[in-house]
This record gives sequence, C-alpha cells and structure tokens, in this order.
Amino acid sequence: MSEASFLGDLLQTIAERGRRLLARGGGPDDGRNGALAALCERLIASRGEASSLALSQEILERWAALSEADRRAFMTMLLESFGPDRAKLDAAVEAYRGAPTPKAAQRLHEASEPRRQELIRRLNSAPDGMAALVRMREALIALKADDPGLAVVDDDFAHLFGSWFNRGFLVLKPIDWATPANVLEKIIRYEAVHEIRDWEELRRRLEPPDRRCFAFFHPRLVDEPLIFVEVALTTDMPATVAEVLAPDRAPIAAEQASAAVFYSISNCQEGLRGVSFGNFLIKQVVEDLRRDLPELATFVTLSPVPGFAAWLAREREAPDSEALSAEDRAALAVLDDRGWMDDAEAVETVRPALTRACAWYLVNARTSRGAPVDPVARFHLGNGARLERVNFLADRSPRAMRQAHGMMVNYLYELDDIETNHEAFFDRGEVAASSSVRRLARRARAADAKPAELPAK
Amino acid sequence: MSEASFLGDLLQTIAERGRRLLARGGGPDDGRNGALAALCERLIASRGEASSLALSQEILERWAALSEADRRAFMTMLLESFGPDRAKLDAAVEAYRGAPTPKAAQRLHEASEPRRQELIRRLNSAPDGMAALVRMREALIALKADDPGLAVVDDDFAHLFGSWFNRGFLVLKPIDWATPANVLEKIIRYEAVHEIRDWEELRRRLEPPDRRCFAFFHPRLVDEPLIFVEVALTTDMPATVAEVLAPDRAPIAAEQASAAVFYSISNCQEGLRGVSFGNFLIKQVVEDLRRDLPELATFVTLSPVPGFAAWLAREREAPDSEALSAEDRAALAVLDDRGWMDDAEAVETVRPALTRACAWYLVNARTSRGAPVDPVARFHLGNGARLERVNFLADRSPRAMRQAHGMMVNYLYELDDIETNHEAFFDRGEVAASSSVRRLARRARAADAKPAELPAK
Amino acid sequence: MSEASFLGDLLQTIAERGRRLLARGGGPDDGRNGALAALCERLIASRGEASSLALSQEILERWAALSEADRRAFMTMLLESFGPDRAKLDAAVEAYRGAPTPKAAQRLHEASEPRRQELIRRLNSAPDGMAALVRMREALIALKADDPGLAVVDDDFAHLFGSWFNRGFLVLKPIDWATPANVLEKIIRYEAVHEIRDWEELRRRLEPPDRRCFAFFHPRLVDEPLIFVEVALTTDMPATVAEVLAPDRAPIAAEQASAAVFYSISNCQEGLRGVSFGNFLIKQVVEDLRRDLPELATFVTLSPVPGFAAWLAREREAPDSEALSAEDRAALAVLDDRGWMDDAEAVETVRPALTRACAWYLVNARTSRGAPVDPVARFHLGNGARLERVNFLADRSPRAMRQAHGMMVNYLYELDDIETNHEAFFDRGEVAASSSVRRLARRARAADAKPAELPAK
Amino acid sequence: MSEASFLGDLLQTIAERGRRLLARGGGPDDGRNGALAALCERLIASRGEASSLALSQEILERWAALSEADRRAFMTMLLESFGPDRAKLDAAVEAYRGAPTPKAAQRLHEASEPRRQELIRRLNSAPDGMAALVRMREALIALKADDPGLAVVDDDFAHLFGSWFNRGFLVLKPIDWATPANVLEKIIRYEAVHEIRDWEELRRRLEPPDRRCFAFFHPRLVDEPLIFVEVALTTDMPATVAEVLAPDRAPIAAEQASAAVFYSISNCQEGLRGVSFGNFLIKQVVEDLRRDLPELATFVTLSPVPGFAAWLAREREAPDSEALSAEDRAALAVLDDRGWMDDAEAVETVRPALTRACAWYLVNARTSRGAPVDPVARFHLGNGARLERVNFLADRSPRAMRQAHGMMVNYLYELDDIETNHEAFFDRGEVAASSSVRRLARRARAADAKPAELPAK
Repeated sequence: MSEASFLGDLLQTIAERGRRLLARGGGPDDGRNGALAALCERLIASRGEASSLALSQEILERWAALSEADRRAFMTMLLESFGPDRAKLDAAVEAYRGAPTPKAAQRLHEASEPRRQELIRRLNSAPDGMAALVRMREALIALKADDPGLAVVDDDFAHLFGSWFNRGFLVLKPIDWATPANVLEKIIRYEAVHEIRDWEELRRRLEPPDRRCFAFFHPRLVDEPLIFVEVALTTDMPATVAEVLAPDRAPIAAEQASAAVFYSISNCQEGLRGVSFGNFLIKQVVEDLRRDLPELATFVTLSPVPGFAAWLAREREAPDSEALSAEDRAALAVLDDRGWMDDAEAVETVRPALTRACAWYLVNARTSRGAPVDPVARFHLGNGARLERVNFLADRSPRAMRQAHGMMVNYLYELDDIETNHEAFFDRGEVAASSSVRRLARRARAADAKPAELPAK
Repeated sequence: MSEASFLGDLLQTIAERGRRLLARGGGPDDGRNGALAALCERLIASRGEASSLALSQEILERWAALSEADRRAFMTMLLESFGPDRAKLDAAVEAYRGAPTPKAAQRLHEASEPRRQELIRRLNSAPDGMAALVRMREALIALKADDPGLAVVDDDFAHLFGSWFNRGFLVLKPIDWATPANVLEKIIRYEAVHEIRDWEELRRRLEPPDRRCFAFFHPRLVDEPLIFVEVALTTDMPATVAEVLAPDRAPIAAEQASAAVFYSISNCQEGLRGVSFGNFLIKQVVEDLRRDLPELATFVTLSPVPGFAAWLAREREAPDSEALSAEDRAALAVLDDRGWMDDAEAVETVRPALTRACAWYLVNARTSRGAPVDPVARFHLGNGARLERVNFLADRSPRAMRQAHGMMVNYLYELDDIETNHEAFFDRGEVAASSSVRRLARRARAADAKPAELPAK
Repeated sequence: MSEASFLGDLLQTIAERGRRLLARGGGPDDGRNGALAALCERLIASRGEASSLALSQEILERWAALSEADRRAFMTMLLESFGPDRAKLDAAVEAYRGAPTPKAAQRLHEASEPRRQELIRRLNSAPDGMAALVRMREALIALKADDPGLAVVDDDFAHLFGSWFNRGFLVLKPIDWATPANVLEKIIRYEAVHEIRDWEELRRRLEPPDRRCFAFFHPRLVDEPLIFVEVALTTDMPATVAEVLAPDRAPIAAEQASAAVFYSISNCQEGLRGVSFGNFLIKQVVEDLRRDLPELATFVTLSPVPGFAAWLAREREAPDSEALSAEDRAALAVLDDRGWMDDAEAVETVRPALTRACAWYLVNARTSRGAPVDPVARFHLGNGARLERVNFLADRSPRAMRQAHGMMVNYLYELDDIETNHEAFFDRGEVAASSSVRRLARRARAADAKPAELPAK
Repeated sequence: MSEASFLGDLLQTIAERGRRLLARGGGPDDGRNGALAALCERLIASRGEASSLALSQEILERWAALSEADRRAFMTMLLESFGPDRAKLDAAVEAYRGAPTPKAAQRLHEASEPRRQELIRRLNSAPDGMAALVRMREALIALKADDPGLAVVDDDFAHLFGSWFNRGFLVLKPIDWATPANVLEKIIRYEAVHEIRDWEELRRRLEPPDRRCFAFFHPRLVDEPLIFVEVALTTDMPATVAEVLAPDRAPIAAEQASAAVFYSISNCQEGLRGVSFGNFLIKQVVEDLRRDLPELATFVTLSPVPGFAAWLAREREAPDSEALSAEDRAALAVLDDRGWMDDAEAVETVRPALTRACAWYLVNARTSRGAPVDPVARFHLGNGARLERVNFLADRSPRAMRQAHGMMVNYLYELDDIETNHEAFFDRGEVAASSSVRRLARRARAADAKPAELPAK
C-alpha cells in the first residue's frame, strides 16, 4: 500500500505543477457549473501531462464540493453537451449507409462515442481518480431515480467500469484480525446482512479459528473492498443465524470442520452497481478453502429471503392464490399478531404453512421475465447453487421478521453441478432444488402436507 | 508477486473445472480455425463463470500454437465475423436518423461496437489473459503490414488497451541490482538504445551509486516492464556515450551529482504500440529523483538522432538543399570515407559542417504534417523538453555511425518550461532550442560559421 | 508476517514429528514438576533436531499451564538444579588459580555458566519460543518480589535477552490507522500514560494528519510492539494534555507543524524489563521525523511527574525541608482540599508555590545514589534531554492529580546538545535545565518569588 | 529489504551525529592500533547512544582497512587487553571458594566474562555491524591457523554467534529465478559442490519446473544467504551428477516427481563456521516440499565422498589393510592410470573393487573419536539419514575424480527413521545403511564378491 501511496504522491506533485500553470492562465475560477464545463472542455482538449492531471483533479475536487442541485446540473451538462459530435456522427452515418464496410462501421462506432467517455477516462488518470469516479456514479445513480434521462450518462460510467473492473483485475484477499484497521472499518460499515455493531463484534467475526472472510480488491481502489463474504466453518449445515453468530459459542478447530457456510455477502460500492463480482467471489473462495482445508465437503449459504413477506402479503390478499391452500391461508393468520414468534403454540401452528409457502415462493414465484422474484434466490440460483433447505424462524432480527417472517434458506454449492445448474437456470428457467424443498413446494396447495416432511426444529 | 500467482492459481483451478465441462459437451476439438471461431462464439454467448474462463483459456492456448497463416485467418475471421451485428446496427442507424436523441446516439454507439471488443474483454479474464492479448496484438501488428484491412481489428485492440493501460493503472518501480532476476533479464532483452551484452554489463548499469533505472509496470503484467529509462547521475551534462558508459569510470556518490542524465529509454511491449508511456515516465522519474536527491539541478537526456544520416544523404543529393551551404556540402564529403572518424584531420574538417547540419535538421526538418522528422526529437520536444546541445562524434557505435554519423543530442527538461514548450510545440509547431543550437541551425547555410560557436570537443 | 507464520508452521510440523517420538519413548507424561525437570534435562542433553524442538515446545506448554505455586517450584528448580556443574567449576577454579592464563580464564567462564542459560537458549528455538520466554520472565519478575533468591535466575534471562534484543535487531515501524488490528489492539492495551478507552479514541490518536506513532519490533516477536511513542505535531510547545488530546481540536497539516511533541511513551513487555529501548527509540523517531518533515524545529515531550506528590507530601511533613519556604508551605495547604483545582481562587493561591516546588523537585531531589528521584526525569535527562518547562494543572486526570497534583513537564531534545547533556548527567550528575526552570528551582525557598517568572497559564 | 535499509539509514544518521562529537573531542585519529585500542576502550565505557554507534562504526571501518599484520596485532590486543578484569575475577574466585552459593557462582561467571564479549555486543549495534563481525571472524579463523592462542578470542565470537544465530532467528526462503539478483550472485559465488559458471547455468538450476532451491537467511544479514540447498525433482533416485545436471535434459512437471534429490548443500559464511545450520535446513526443506508436493515419497541426496581417495591411497599402501582383499587391491591398480575412466575395460575391471572399497570406507572407516572419516558422511549420518547406495563413476569432474575416483553416495532421509538413526549414531556410533551397502561393505575383504550385487550401471 505504501507503494501505491508513493506513486500517488508523485502524481500529486505533477498535478500541483500543472495547477500552478492553470492558475497562471487565469480563467475558470468562478466556481460555477459553467466554469466546470469549461474545465471539462479543456481537459478533453488537453495534450499536456501536467495540465491534464491538474485539470482532472480540479474537476474532481470541485465536483465533490457541489450541492445536489449543482450535481444534477453537471450531469445534465454531460448528457447534453458531452454526447457525440453531431456533425461527425451524421457524416459517419451517411458514410456507413453509402458503403457499410467494416471500416465504415468502425468509424460510426468511434463517431458515436459520447465525448463524456473520453472525459471519464481522463478523469481516471488523476491521483485517486478511480475512487472519485466511483463516488460520482454513486451520486448519479441517486439522481437518475428522479431523472431517467440521465440513464444515458450512467450507461457510459457502467460501460467503462465494466472494462476497468474486468475480473482479471480483481484481487482476492483474506480479511482477518491482522488486516489493517482502515480496511476493517469498512467491513463494519458495509456489512449489509447481519450488522456488526462494534470492533469487538468484528473481532468475533474474524479472529476465531472457525471464521474466514474474503474480499475482492482492485489495484486502483487501495484499502477499499469491493465485495466481501463472511464464512463460518462448521460441522453441520446450520438452520439459524443464532447457531452461527452466538457470542458464546465454542469455536472449533478449522481442521474439524466439514462445512463452510457463507452467511453474509455484502457489496461495498454502490457506485459499482451492475458490475457483478459475487458469482466469481464465491467460486474463488470455495477453491481457496478447498486448497487450505481439503476435508471440507459442503459449501453452503445461510441466506435471507428478502422478498418473501411482501409476496406473501399479496398472496394472502389474492382470493385465487395458487400458492396457498385454504388451510394454510388460515394458519398464516397467526402472522398478524406481532410477537407470534414468542408464543410456542402460534409458532407450531404457523410452522408448516409458512415453510411450505416459502418453498413455493422460492421455487415458483417468478417475475414477468420469468426470473425468481427473490433477489437473493436469483443471485445464488444464477450462480448455479441449489435450493437445499428452507429454515423456519431462522433469523429473529427485526429486519428478518419484517422481510421474511424469520425464514432463511440454505443454498448449496455442489461444485460438480454448478455449471449444469447455471445453464439449466438461464437456458430453461429451471430452479435447482433438493427433493425435500421440491416436495414442500408441491404440497403448498395440498391439504395433506405431512409434518414429518418438515425440517426438524 | 506471489499474491498474483496465488490468484492465478485459483483462476486456473476454476478454468480447469470449466474445461472438463467443455470436454463433456464435446464438440470443438478438431483444432482448426473453424473450431476456434465456434469457441469464440460460445465465449461471447457464455454466461457461466467457469465455462467462460475455460473457453478463454482454450482460445488463447490454441491461438498461441497457430501457424502464421492460421493467425492471419483468425484475424480475418475477427474482421469479417465479429464486427457489429448488421441487423441491429442498421436498425439503430435508422432509429437515430428518425430521432437523433442522446438515447438514440447511445444505442447507435452500442450497436456499432464490434462483437470482437466483447470477445477481447472476455479473453482478458483468463489467467494471464492480458499478457496473451498483448502478444496477440504484437502478432497482429506484424500481419497488418501486409494486410491493411486488419487495421480495423487492430484499432479495437488499441482502443481497449488504451483504457486498460490508462496511466492511473501504471506503477513506477525502481530497477536495481536487488530487482528479481526474471525482471532484469527483460531489461537486458528490451534495451533498445545501448545494448547490454551480459549480466556483468547489466550490473554496471544498475549497481554503482551514480546509476538509477526506473520502469513502469501494470498490475496484470507481473514481472513485465512496459517501458524503462536508465539514468546516470553526473556533475556535467555529458557530450558522449563513452563518458557515461566507460567501464572503468570512477562512480561518484549520488549526493555529489548535480545532473541526472536520461541516456536510454526503451519501450518493452511491441503489442502496446501506440499506448504512450514515455512522457509520463520521464516526469515521474524527475519528481522521484528530486525528492530523493534535492541537490539535482539539471535533468537532461543524451539521445540518438536516428533519422539524421538518411535525411543528410537526401540533402546532399538535392542540388537546391536549403540546409547545406556549398562549403559545408564540400566538407561533408569526408563522410564518404569509411573510417573518417579515426582520421584526426578528417574529423576536424567535417566537425563544423556536420554539427551545423544536425542542428538544422533538428530545428527545421519537418514531415508533411509539420512535425520534426526525427522521431526522438518528436518525442522529447512533444514532452516539452528543449534542444540543448548537439554533440559531435558522441557515439562511435556502428549503429550510431550509420544512423547519425555519430551525432547525439541533449534534450533538457526544465521543469518550469515543460508545459509552455509543450503547448508551443503542439499549438504553433515551435521547437524549443537553446540559443547556441538556434545559432548553429541558422548558420547552416551561411559561409561564416564561427568555429568558436561549436561546442568544445 | 505470513512469512513468519509459514516458518512457524514448518517448525510446528517438525516439532510434531518429534513429539510422536517422545510419546513413543514414553516417560515424562505425569505432568508434575519432577517430570518437567526431567524434560529439561533431556532437552539439554538432546542432539536431535526434532526431539529438541518437541521437548522445547512440551516444556513451554506445560509451563504455561502451571499454577503459580508450581511456577515458583519450577524456578527454584532452575536455581538449584540448573546452575553450573559444580565439579567442573571447582576444577576450573583450581586450574585458574594454578595458572591464570587467558585460556584458563575462558575455561572458568565456560564452567561457571549456569546450565539454565543453555536451557533457555534451547527453549528459544521452539516455534514462538521467544514470546513464551518473555512471558516466562514476566512471571519470574513477579515471583522474585517474594523470593529474592530467584534474582540469580532472573539475571540469566536478563543477560540473554540483552543479547537477543541488541538494538541491532530492533525494527522501527510507524503505527497508523492502516496498521493491522492485532497490533493496534496492543497499542490500546499497553498505553500506560494516557489511557485509550476504545477504538474510536485510538483512531483519534493515529488518523489525523498531525499525529504520529512509532514502535520498535523484534523479528521474533511478530505483531508484538516492544515500546511505542505517540507524537503530536503542533505549532507550539504544549502546556497541557488537554491541548494535545482535545477530542474536538482541529488538526493541522503536518507541513504546518514546527514542533513534535512526544506525549506518551509506553513499554509493552514487562518480561523485557531492564532491556532499554526508549533512549534509542526517541532518537530514531526524531531522525525519522526530521527526514520526513524538514521544517520541524522543536522536539519536546509533555511528560508526567509521577513521583512528585509523594515527595511533596514528605517535604511538607519534614519541618526542616530545604525545598519549601514557609510561605509556599502555607500556600500548599490548599492541596489538602479535594477539588481545589475547580476553585479559581485556590488555583491561583497554589500555582506559584506548586510550580516552584515541582521545579525544585526535578532539579534537586536525588536518590541516595545521586540520581533524580523522579523516574521520568531520570529517563529523559539520562537521554540527554533538557528540563524545559514546568506546567501547572497540565493534566487533570485522577491519576495525574494523585501522583503529581496535575503538574507536567516539557523535556526538550535539542539534537546538538544531547550527547553533552548526557555525559554531564552521567559523569557529573548535572541536570540540564532551562534558565527559567533553574530560576524557579532556586527560588523555591526564597520568599520573593516573582509571579512574573511563572509560565503563563 | 527496503525496510531494513531505511532503518540502516536512520542508524547511519545517528552515527554521523556521534561521529561529529567524536571529532570534536579530538583524539584517536592517528589510525594505528594503539588508537584502535583506545576507541575500543571508549566504546566499552560509553553510555551515549550516538557516540556509541559512532565509535562502533569507526572501529569497524578502521578494522576493514587494516593490513593482515595489523589485524593480527588487533586480535592479539583483544586477547591480551580485553580479557576479564583480573582483580574482579580474582576476588570473585576467592568469594566463590569461601561460599560457593548460586549467587557467588553467578558473580564468578560475570567476572570471568572477557571484556571483548561486551565489545563485540556493542560493535553489533552498528549499522551493518553483524555483517562486519562475521567478516572479522572470517579473518580471525585464518589468523588462528598460525597463532593458536587466538582460539580463545575466536571462542568468544563463536559463543555470541551461536546465540545470535539461534535457529529461532533463521528464516527459510525459496530461491528461484524471481529472487533478487544481488542474492543470486551469492548463490553463484558460494556454490561449493557443483560449480555454477555463469548466469545461464544458474538459470538452469533455478528456473525449470523440476528444480528447487532454499536458503536460510538471518534478519540482520539482509541479502546474505547463510546456507542453501539445491534440489532436483525426479522420478528415480539418481546415480550420477550427469543425470541431474545434463544441460539438455527435458524437465518434468513438479507434480510428476516422486523423489526430491538434494544434490548440493553449500555453507556461505566462513565467519559462521561451527554454527550448524545444515541439519535444520534439510528437515525444513523436506517439510516444505511435502506440503507443496504431497506425492513426493523419497528424499535423498546425491553427495560427494571427499575423503575417499586419500583414505584409499593410505589403505593401498598399508600392507595389512582390513579394507581391501588382495584381489581388489590388484584391481585398484587401474586407478593409477590417468584416464582410466575413458577405457571401458579398465572401468569394468575396477568397478566392483572400487564400489566395495567405498562402501567399506563409508561404513567402517572411523576417526580416532569413532566418527566416520568422511565429513559428508558425518554430516548426513549425524542428521539421521541412511547410507542408501554407492554410485560408481557418478561424477567425472576433475575434483570428484581426484577426491573420490568419481564415486558418489545417496543418503536417504526416511522421515520416520531420522531420529532413531540420529540417536543410534550418536549414542552407539552406529551407521545406518541399506542392506545392499552393508553387504558390499562386508564383502570388501571377501574374495567372492558377486557382481550381481553391484548396482546396475
């Protein structure tokens, strides 16, 4: 890391030199968007190294200080003034129509490249330019919600990020208690599934011999994890979060473990939305663990079901739901009592119906495009994992109760089946599921569900 | 480096897994270009991580084993079959003509992207994919010479490399006698200016306290320098190579030096032709040296003049050359005797005329586009350096005698003038030169050149 | 650090192999001190690599599990059974008396070496042997308090540690917010001057641009700092802890600082007591800071005065104290009211007298051997620093109020005077002090102390 | 390594500061041994950090410039003037005789410590002090040959080195083609068994996939290997050097190897003679290779027999040699013809007799203390290896022909037997040997040796 910061310092010195030149030249120091636009024009036109670095840095610093309104104006400017050169593009269109040769197609491609792509590439050369661009896109994604026209600008960021964050650039690093604190604080901050309240809780996630954590890093975002996964080494496939995270549990030796449980996967950079890392991360971590601990036989997640409660509410209101039998629908009324999970009788009443409904949801509920409704299911099934088990009252945290009535799922990564599952999923929309989940899902509407089929508490 | 190789191993394992899947699927194992095309199609269509890695690696390995003729056929296939999707492109063209909105322009840009760009991006994910692609382009550049149509394909490589080798990714590292041998052997191999015959000569370039060397590296091309510069720390601006490289010279302590002499700059990767690193390298090295050795006051090159002899031959044949006075033309006849440089009288006869002609060449000789004819002059003047001094009989090596009648040049990097010179050069075609060089150049045609103006031997 | 752990793993594997051999041999598994003595005898006699490693590890592990009583018994055993071989020693004594040649003296030296020294050297070869020995001596120091005979054993540890922790082995490392968490938690744990309550407070000590921290490490105690110093970069020599550690202070840029304030120095390893690091640490840190921040002109501490309150209590009770005038003695009565420091009038009453008394104490109060009574004064004056200023109500923490009535001192490290001060201190017992401190100390008994001489609040 | 050099720089700066103080003090600048003695006295007396460092460095630098005669005088001075303080020692002797308590023994040990031990410890603190002391002892070992009295001084060096080079300090590192050149050049220089002529030959030893090399390093001797071993990965136990080092052999993949052959072990530091590393090195390398390449089943050397030819010459001259039968003695006459190894008939004549003699030599020839005569045999058998096979005409290099008539030996490291062999060797003088070697050795004097027992060519 010190090498990176050393390089950063040199770039900084060169940029400072350029900045003095800019200052001499006078001009765009009035600090308004007009001036920013002028700086962007100068940057695209620039051929000098130092002035180019100085311009990049100036633009990124000014951007960071803009109000939200000014940021919106800036993005609109990128949309309107930094598209392709219209005259050149029109000429290229006509040339292509005249003679659609490979060369003409290529000219057309070049002429249609929005000038903001070159602008973004040049901003990327600044010291810390990449990090600033990721933050810039994070803001852009928020702005885009109210202003769909900005999607065109966002696509340019997304295109370039896709190339720069090509997985060939990613570096997998283990995260442990000997990791630098400035990285660890980001693990605390970005943990999105099971909150890490403080450094002591972080230590419990990292230091025991039966815990592992891995993150992807990018060479230009030093100290910034892109995505990370927390792993528990266990002797069984766990059915609840409490088993995995109990503060007083007795750790086992890593060599005793037969299963690796991926119990939390968190994306860190909102500005990299749409650049997919998770698929690759899990597979690399599996290979790394297998190499280090050859006795590991099972690779499985313990995952939330974030879309379940919302879907279930809709089904319960729909008079003709395919998913729910009348009996189950009746039993699910228990869910309307807050605090049902602390009432043993209510729990036993709702258990079979809720478990069946969850299985049905995961196997059968689809979006209009035919993909699973549940985003976590989409992710793991798309990776080639198998729906292995549905777990009742597996996470009693307020969020999990609200989003999924406490249900969780184990997705199993069976290495030899991953590619087959993956292709079946994408080619034919098939969901890989264990026979028990499949049976539960089938029986969702049937009256004769046998409790014996339910997973033991 | 071991981290990189660790990651490489994991990728390899994942790719192996995918390879078994490919094998199962049967199919494209007949090893001909048709099969390679099919593999490329499958790679573009692939969504699975493992099969995508396996396909990438398979393609790159097969490519490496192809004959030159098959490589040409492969490139032609990329040109003809992996351009943009014609139907989509035509639709996008029409849509744009109908309503030239930003969104339509963007669609047009996307639709005109040749499919080989995505193919190259996917190949880049393979372990060692980047290195393989750089070698692939090296071959492509050679093929292109006979087959200008392939320039379209080369442009796609160049475009992606420009983005991936964005200077934000480059890492400057000092090269010294404690550098790993597998990097040092590349310094021996790639040195393009003053040959390094063996490891002992390499040691003399790196180990003495008054020598420095720096290279740019890229995080995905481990152990592969992209460009490097060799530096001598001296007390004076040197006039000959012999002063700098004399095997028996007495090194000085780095703290005694007042000048840093850049006496050799070599690009290493033919496959990265057109991606410019040198400009940035010199400026970073200057900053690094200044930080380390604050007493350094002069940053100067000792550079070859590779185009001089060819130009001079043309001028001497042209009856109406502006560059040569009749007297000088006569004096230059000495050059036609092989071995003139060992004849003291001949040397003194030709010295003034040759020095003047060289100054004239550097200051005034231009290409049809107005740039200096000499490629090394183009590079340093474009960087903002100043033509400081023209050195007679400065390099007696056969190559230098052949290319430049032994002439060399000092280009001075005066930090405060670099940007100004740079802009004057690009905006107005002005060549920055010291007054003495300027005077020599002016007097080239004049009869009254005063020997006193010549640099002392 | 992974390199160290890799080596540790190999050693571990070799030790495991030896352990199986030991087990085969049967024997000393009854877990009592007798058995431990037998293991120690076997270790000294051992010539095999693996069995020697296994024996070392076995002994260290058993030791770690001993009760305090058994540890005492173990140390007594080392004292009584692992001294020199009496017969050999007596023979060497007689040989030396017969002919006191260099060779005979050397034989005597060898023969008088206690066998426990060789034992300790062999224990040191175990993986983590050094760390275990440091902990062992920590226990021994505690045992020695009740059992002065063990001092002989302790001297053997001290002698070997002095050689192994020779300053040539020490590595100075900066500690910052990018330091691994397992090192940082030790900074929290070992901070002995100004408590660090939690990770947020740690961050405030390390992350701002005007903070520095440095520690010495030893290659065999990975992740274990030996001693560390916390530094504040400031524009003035601070008079109170609050100025330095105020949670809401505005940090300055490092380049703006003119002073480096060493406000906390903590030894980490009780087991290394008597091995002196601090002297060397401060001088290396000064050189490091000067190199990095050439504009730093002042290197000064803000130090506690831990012996002051106890000394003052004795002086106030002594009717014929030289240190206190009658007036000052009267004024100091204020100190008997708890909470005086929150009473503005009391504060002003006691300020001159307390300040004078503290100056007197630091300059004049000596132990029976002539050294300053105050241990912190001894340390810094012994290092060659100068007593620069005495600060009233400089630390309001309960400990500082209890130990020093809130007084603190600045010791100044003037690089050009350090050696001279150091020699004057050791050769002639002279305390280097600024003229103002000197005046205060002189006037301690005088009635005419002028408030104007006191440092401004 | 840069960390080490960074620390070195700081130490240097502190030493410079001290040096100026020394200079001020005037005095010992006359550059003679008298002055050096005075500096040594000052160093022992010194308490100041900076002056102590400066003195150490001054002494080491002056030492380095001394003539051989002055070095001898210096060592004699250490012997005569830096022994123990006679008065103190005599007092300690008498005190001990009066009451031989542990404390008195300890005092005696302290009083008998030669003052040069403290001198050496202080010299060790200088930047590069350790390296300078190792070179100093190298010179001392040479001087000692003519001046046995200096052995006393040498013992002090040896004692301290034994403690400082405790194997707990040693770091095992792989050496490969990515190792820094300044380390690799030392591999070339120190290779003591099979000469490495140049960098290309070095590359052939390190770069192929079936080659490994490992060295021990010490944290204070950066870039200086202490000992290294070269390993060939093979499918069989090799019988000749040519098999292992043939320049044109086809390397195998590491995973295909079933045997690791230690074909060269070289100590690097003559100044560390007597500090044993080899035993430990081989065992760590075995463990490292097993971890990396679990399919390796055989760990074996291909070793020279350096004492064989000299021993055989004596036996052939001794009329009553037990080792040679009359027949074999006759057959061995062939050896007197230079060039016998190129005469096929001579080769077949001498093969059985020479092989038997070599086996006899290794198994039975002992020094007066009962150890094997052959130093390499002593080393490996002492490590617990087994004499596995004797190889005829295994090394045709001039040295091997001269020292061993071309014979070589395989010593086998069978992990489960190492400790047992080791103990049998040291406790009962038993040589572990395979049954075939044993049979050959037995039959050395017998007339009926069956050629069938000889290893196949």
